[in-house]
Amino acid sequence: MKKPSLVLFPRAVSVPGFEFAGVAAAIKENAKKKDVALIYAPDGASAAGVFTRNRFRAAPVQVSERNVRSGRAQLVVINSGCANAATGALGFDDAVATTDFAARVFDARACDVLVCSTGKIGPRLPMDKLRKGILAAREQLNVGGFAAAAEAICTTDAYPKAAFVRGKLSGKSFRIAVMAKGAGMICPDMATMLCFVMTDLKVSPAALKKLLREAVDVTLNRATVDGDASTNDTVLMLASGCAQNPTFAAGTKEYDVVKSALVSVLEKITLQIVLDGEGATKCFVVDVSGAKSAKEAERAASAVANSQLVKAAMFGNDPNWGRIAAAVGYSGARFKQDDVRIAMGGIKLYDQGRVLVQNEKRAAAFLRGHDVVPVSVSLGKGGGQARVYASDLTHDYVRLNAEYRT
Amino acid sequence: MKKPSLVLFPRAVSVPGFEFAGVAAAIKENAKKKDVALIYAPDGASAAGVFTRNRFRAAPVQVSERNVRSGRAQLVVINSGCANAATGALGFDDAVATTDFAARVFDARACDVLVCSTGKIGPRLPMDKLRKGILAAREQLNVGGFAAAAEAICTTDAYPKAAFVRGKLSGKSFRIAVMAKGAGMICPDMATMLCFVMTDLKVSPAALKKLLREAVDVTLNRATVDGDASTNDTVLMLASGCAQNPTFAAGTKEYDVVKSALVSVLEKITLQIVLDGEGATKCFVVDVSGAKSAKEAERAASAVANSQLVKAAMFGNDPNWGRIAAAVGYSGARFKQDDVRIAMGGIKLYDQGRVLVQNEKRAAAFLRGHDVVPVSVSLGKGGGQARVYASDLTHDYVRLNAEYRT
Repeated sequence: MKKPSLVLFPRAVSVPGFEFAGVAAAIKENAKKKDVALIYAPDGASAAGVFTRNRFRAAPVQVSERNVRSGRAQLVVINSGCANAATGALGFDDAVATTDFAARVFDARACDVLVCSTGKIGPRLPMDKLRKGILAAREQLNVGGFAAAAEAICTTDAYPKAAFVRGKLSGKSFRIAVMAKGAGMICPDMATMLCFVMTDLKVSPAALKKLLREAVDVTLNRATVDGDASTNDTVLMLASGCAQNPTFAAGTKEYDVVKSALVSVLEKITLQIVLDGEGATKCFVVDVSGAKSAKEAERAASAVANSQLVKAAMFGNDPNWGRIAAAVGYSGARFKQDDVRIAMGGIKLYDQGRVLVQNEKRAAAFLRGHDVVPVSVSLGKGGGQARVYASDLTHDYVRLNAEYRT
Repeated sequence: MKKPSLVLFPRAVSVPGFEFAGVAAAIKENAKKKDVALIYAPDGASAAGVFTRNRFRAAPVQVSERNVRSGRAQLVVINSGCANAATGALGFDDAVATTDFAARVFDARACDVLVCSTGKIGPRLPMDKLRKGILAAREQLNVGGFAAAAEAICTTDAYPKAAFVRGKLSGKSFRIAVMAKGAGMICPDMATMLCFVMTDLKVSPAALKKLLREAVDVTLNRATVDGDASTNDTVLMLASGCAQNPTFAAGTKEYDVVKSALVSVLEKITLQIVLDGEGATKCFVVDVSGAKSAKEAERAASAVANSQLVKAAMFGNDPNWGRIAAAVGYSGARFKQDDVRIAMGGIKLYDQGRVLVQNEKRAAAFLRGHDVVPVSVSLGKGGGQARVYASDLTHDYVRLNAEYRT
């Protein structure tokens, strides 16, 4: 697919307190492709994680979730090419052995090492290759290694995903950089969303945990390529403290400044991930307002975002408000059908019982011309609102998912 | 698509107490296609209905739901080509006017007339054509008109859908005949499942209501083409009483005999509808057992059935147990991943933590050779079980749904 215009890979990203590396260790079938990445905080960092809620959880998810509970971390080891999922007790041992090995190499504590894997489900981790990869990556570690690491975590992604923001807090400037790989669930089987957030802010582990959870809830957790959730999905955030800001607690103005910066970078990453969804040609952003509650708004928005009929219409540049209405109708959200308003790209299509047929051509033209499409649904019932990001359903999606392995 | 082997249209269906007709009234764009059907019980019938839960409800749904509450009906008027949905108060008036007109023509009470519409969303019912169609259909009414009526209710269906069963109750023989049109949601926008069940049994309105609800809950309500629910979905059941059996109440042996016969015909109809889902090449039947409760089993089975990844893998004849595991994992059903067993076509693929790679080729061959594929998932947790019927996700689905109207 073509790289969407909004994806501007930030050049020469660096975040004080972090070093990065990405190398090829022949874990992927194509031995030239990078497949081991390191994110290293020489002086340690506050750490927080958000993990897949899937009950089938890959071994590295189990290990990282346990290790991040301390609120501290020094090193993240990521491999692509093998998910270390559905590998049972042996896979768990492999993930633990990875933290042990990396800890020895870096003279760190194993409990300060986090591990992430993405790739084929089923096979064991090739430990020899991974160990060699970690050693090779250590040699490459440097403050400018962000792009190499962002490349090494990719699997079937069409392009590496990154976003970057600068801000000011209590007179100190700070940075937040994010790299991610897509939730496009092609190859192999149910590939994974991995996302790493690095900041030089000083943040207490408790505040960091809350920040990450809240920001992920309104961005990455609102993205749907096909409604499926993988076994390995992981978001980790590390804060080095190099910005030397005074620490802040939840509920303060400072907290809100940081949260808003974090949400803005994660929104960019979310759009990149959805646009690189399998075979996707569009990201449509569903905003539901006027629901009885935020929960009902989310239900309605998710029903629209996950509707195969809506997704296919988006692919066909068909401003099919009827399918949106039907999805909202079965979502469980309460409303009267004569109160509902539906618009696409700001163009009204259904307005409190009236079908605005005359606007459909304009809306179709909007769809043809945009790869990010705002869809708004107002239920006229209350103050609940929610946003969900979705990709369209395309021939390439079916081809990629039906023909893989066969 | 090719007509699947299991669809055997029952020849010369008749049910004592009923007359049928189907005619072309130029409501469909192709004026040669039948688009008005009548189901007539000259001496009246017990009646019950199950209607879409979508909050966007078409006018005929609102009118029929109100009229069927009495538990009696004499006539069902069905038109295809126009859904009379999203037509507001005027559409409601049209549906009521249809019952009024038909009541005059048949010297019946308007409240004993039920109406169903399927077709384009948005446009008003062409009342002149519909009235002419009702008059023409009245001339065609006869006990052998079942096939003509079954044809007239279709929209984009590849073939009319019907099932028939005979049974014995308290020494009296009885019949149940069903006609349906598909839930394939192509054209126009979000076409509808309509299903009509006729029996010559004598059944009280109360027992009939319970019978229909219970049987639909384990058959038609467990079918998913794309997870979307239409604005017009309607199932009506009429019982003429001509079999002269003693009436029976819920909880009796007689009730169970009838329910089991009803479930068996509705199962056949469900498979036909799913196999004629848009672009479908397969129906996969997901049986989840060993769940904590029936509700959790249904959640797990629905997650598998609605997973785009699983559906696409089915199309590709890929026995991808991993995607099934992931869907069960995010369904909310509780289990330990080492207790889970997954099989397709009776062939084990994942067995309590072990991946049976050696069986995948056999399973792939099974998929290539069958259009009805049993998928079983055992959670090892309790006695809850559920079955869901699903279609695969194909290129034709995307083509039909993306390219309609554009």
